[in-house]
Amino acid sequence: MAPGRIPVDGLLLHAGKLVTLAGGSGPLGGRVSDAGVIEDGAVAWAGSRVAWTGASREAEAALDLAPGAFAHDAEGRCVVPGLVDAHTHLLYAGSREDEWEERLRGVTYAEIAARGEGILSTVRATREADPETLRLLATARLQRSLENGVTTVEVKSGYGLTLESEIKSLQVLARINLDGPYEVVPTFLGAHEVGPEFRGRRPDYVREVVRNWIPEVARLGLADFFDVFCEKGVFELEDSREMCEAAASHGLRVKLHADEFFALGGAGLAAELGAVSADHLICARTEDLEKMRDGGTIPVLLPGTSLLVGAPWAPASVMLDMGLPVVLATDCNPGTCPCEHLPLMGSLALGGYRMPPLTALAGVTRNAAFAVGRGDRLGRIEPGFQMDAVLLEEDSPAGLFVHMGSRPARAVWKRGRLVYQKEGTRVPESPRAGR
Amino acid sequence: MAPGRIPVDGLLLHAGKLVTLAGGSGPLGGRVSDAGVIEDGAVAWAGSRVAWTGASREAEAALDLAPGAFAHDAEGRCVVPGLVDAHTHLLYAGSREDEWEERLRGVTYAEIAARGEGILSTVRATREADPETLRLLATARLQRSLENGVTTVEVKSGYGLTLESEIKSLQVLARINLDGPYEVVPTFLGAHEVGPEFRGRRPDYVREVVRNWIPEVARLGLADFFDVFCEKGVFELEDSREMCEAAASHGLRVKLHADEFFALGGAGLAAELGAVSADHLICARTEDLEKMRDGGTIPVLLPGTSLLVGAPWAPASVMLDMGLPVVLATDCNPGTCPCEHLPLMGSLALGGYRMPPLTALAGVTRNAAFAVGRGDRLGRIEPGFQMDAVLLEEDSPAGLFVHMGSRPARAVWKRGRLVYQKEGTRVPESPRAGR
Repeated sequence: MAPGRIPVDGLLLHAGKLVTLAGGSGPLGGRVSDAGVIEDGAVAWAGSRVAWTGASREAEAALDLAPGAFAHDAEGRCVVPGLVDAHTHLLYAGSREDEWEERLRGVTYAEIAARGEGILSTVRATREADPETLRLLATARLQRSLENGVTTVEVKSGYGLTLESEIKSLQVLARINLDGPYEVVPTFLGAHEVGPEFRGRRPDYVREVVRNWIPEVARLGLADFFDVFCEKGVFELEDSREMCEAAASHGLRVKLHADEFFALGGAGLAAELGAVSADHLICARTEDLEKMRDGGTIPVLLPGTSLLVGAPWAPASVMLDMGLPVVLATDCNPGTCPCEHLPLMGSLALGGYRMPPLTALAGVTRNAAFAVGRGDRLGRIEPGFQMDAVLLEEDSPAGLFVHMGSRPARAVWKRGRLVYQKEGTRVPESPRAGR
Repeated sequence: MAPGRIPVDGLLLHAGKLVTLAGGSGPLGGRVSDAGVIEDGAVAWAGSRVAWTGASREAEAALDLAPGAFAHDAEGRCVVPGLVDAHTHLLYAGSREDEWEERLRGVTYAEIAARGEGILSTVRATREADPETLRLLATARLQRSLENGVTTVEVKSGYGLTLESEIKSLQVLARINLDGPYEVVPTFLGAHEVGPEFRGRRPDYVREVVRNWIPEVARLGLADFFDVFCEKGVFELEDSREMCEAAASHGLRVKLHADEFFALGGAGLAAELGAVSADHLICARTEDLEKMRDGGTIPVLLPGTSLLVGAPWAPASVMLDMGLPVVLATDCNPGTCPCEHLPLMGSLALGGYRMPPLTALAGVTRNAAFAVGRGDRLGRIEPGFQMDAVLLEEDSPAGLFVHMGSRPARAVWKRGRLVYQKEGTRVPESPRAGR
């Protein structure tokens, strides 16, 4: 090893633009003007962590590449941090595709639910599925997501609605994490809906979640987060507060589905509770958004759901004007947005929110990492951070979003390992630096 | 050959739903309730044409499969007609990705154009590109489109804006058609914008198009359609009328970019001229839409462009209520919607237009075929029609749209040939019928 050189065992050279999103601390509030772009950039890593970034022409002098390691050539394409999908419900069985023809012909969700369809059909199918079936269904979705450049995915339980089936779902997530390469952030959403056994007895259900389910899930260490579907007619503000406070007392951090269909004040509650994120926020009040900003609660927006259910776009520009760090996520779920294409949420954000591309990029990388509690090690290409990165087809970050519905990723690295290469392509090796 | 049996040389059995869109004549107006679905359906073909459709269990008795021919098994998945993208500008060189950060930060299109960027940068790059480069760029886009299930694509010239470069573009399209498997419908859009050599001299440009370009393009037989960007400040109504009438007198059928940003009355003009389609129509007046319906001019809607440029959704529900046959297309172009994902336009239609899935499906198949003048042989799975079909990943037509940005096609047939199979999958052979 040459003296003074950094020992590394992986290197990617000649990114036309290496978009690092590095520097400083915390999420990036407001519109992002400095994405830390390095022209003709290079990134080197040791084990699973980034060891060095800089200009490609400086790599040789700076680095000592381990024998047998690969140096890859990005051939001038753009490289961005691995994307983080901060809000999904992708662990489920069954399909609800057939609901759409009816719903778009005017049959109401309530009528569909009254027939035992809607969310309860997903609950039924998910309860019936054995863990291996659930694992295969979820990993197929995670693989499609990975192929779109997504290296970390928050996944909520919430289609079990009994302690046993919620734990089954969370255990499947733990297993997926062990197997890799997918990195899943597990969230306990036992409060997704009142379980069918408690129909008409919401207070009993809330008591059950508070007294028995939260302590057990916390004891088993199966979830990073606790989340509630706080919405008029589902869990009211006081229910949500009670459950979230119980979760916090057991060491679970809190997220909240807030103000999606009504201005109930969920955003303000999330801020008051010190929640890590408040999600949806279509009807959030400006004063509640200000509380979120002041308290450090991150807004997670789900434009795919707005589109498909015909809801208004969330007030993203208001949030950006306030300096909030806006996050974009898929909400991947069988009822309102069965979508695994996180870059497409950026497309919708450009279009519906009029969000500039670099701001959208921060919303699916650095800021999203903070929304899942991992902003200290994910979402950037920066020494010390995990080497999760995507080699894009396009030359610029905007290309990730404006080529709507494209297959934007040529290659994906997760924890320093090349875990995906698009069929028919190969990331060529580069002459080694340091030789 | 068994007596009374239909001789065929290809067969696809066991489509869970074979969505034929067959029967009757003409496009399907209004909301579609009968998509001609055959449960456990089969389709057989001879050469490039469909020879028979029916229930799988009836195939053996009905058909005589040629020796050496394949019988494929859809394994219960949904099969739909090959999709038709009825409005694209996908023949171009250069990239304008970098404009988006500026535009979404408030720099106007006029300011960008004043620097020689915007459409003129595409014109410059397209003029400079040799035919082989243009062919490769276009076929890469057509291949991505094919992999999304699109078997026919209308492509406009219009980034040359000199007779020579417009002819170069149209000749590239002719070459692509000869090579296959892509089926391209060529449209002459010399009136996309006033060419830079005629800046400030629009009447001279219009005269040039009328007197010299239209006759020459028609003489060479390079275009099915003539199209004009009829818009305030580009080509006014009277310019458009003059050019379209000249085109019609030379045997070219007419399409019109109409009422995208202003209610200029382009939709009414299109109806008056007997245009095959009027496209965009965001600001179209109801009385003009009625004229279109009465005259048989088909509305082609481009929701991807509405989304990305931040324009309103076109009044699709009004059109459907009137009984118009609504078509959805990508508008694939470098400036406002660089998208090759036609099924995603269905997603946007479900969301933005509140269009039911079967209606969206007709809008990208049967009705789209009529919008490109090929409704007599494309857009349906029906005896006598071309065997263009898509084996979907999903079990229902809604799946094509609600899994937003997914890779919906497992396999694609064009003119009876299997031209695409998704990597890692194989359409299994089925025990032969008739043996």
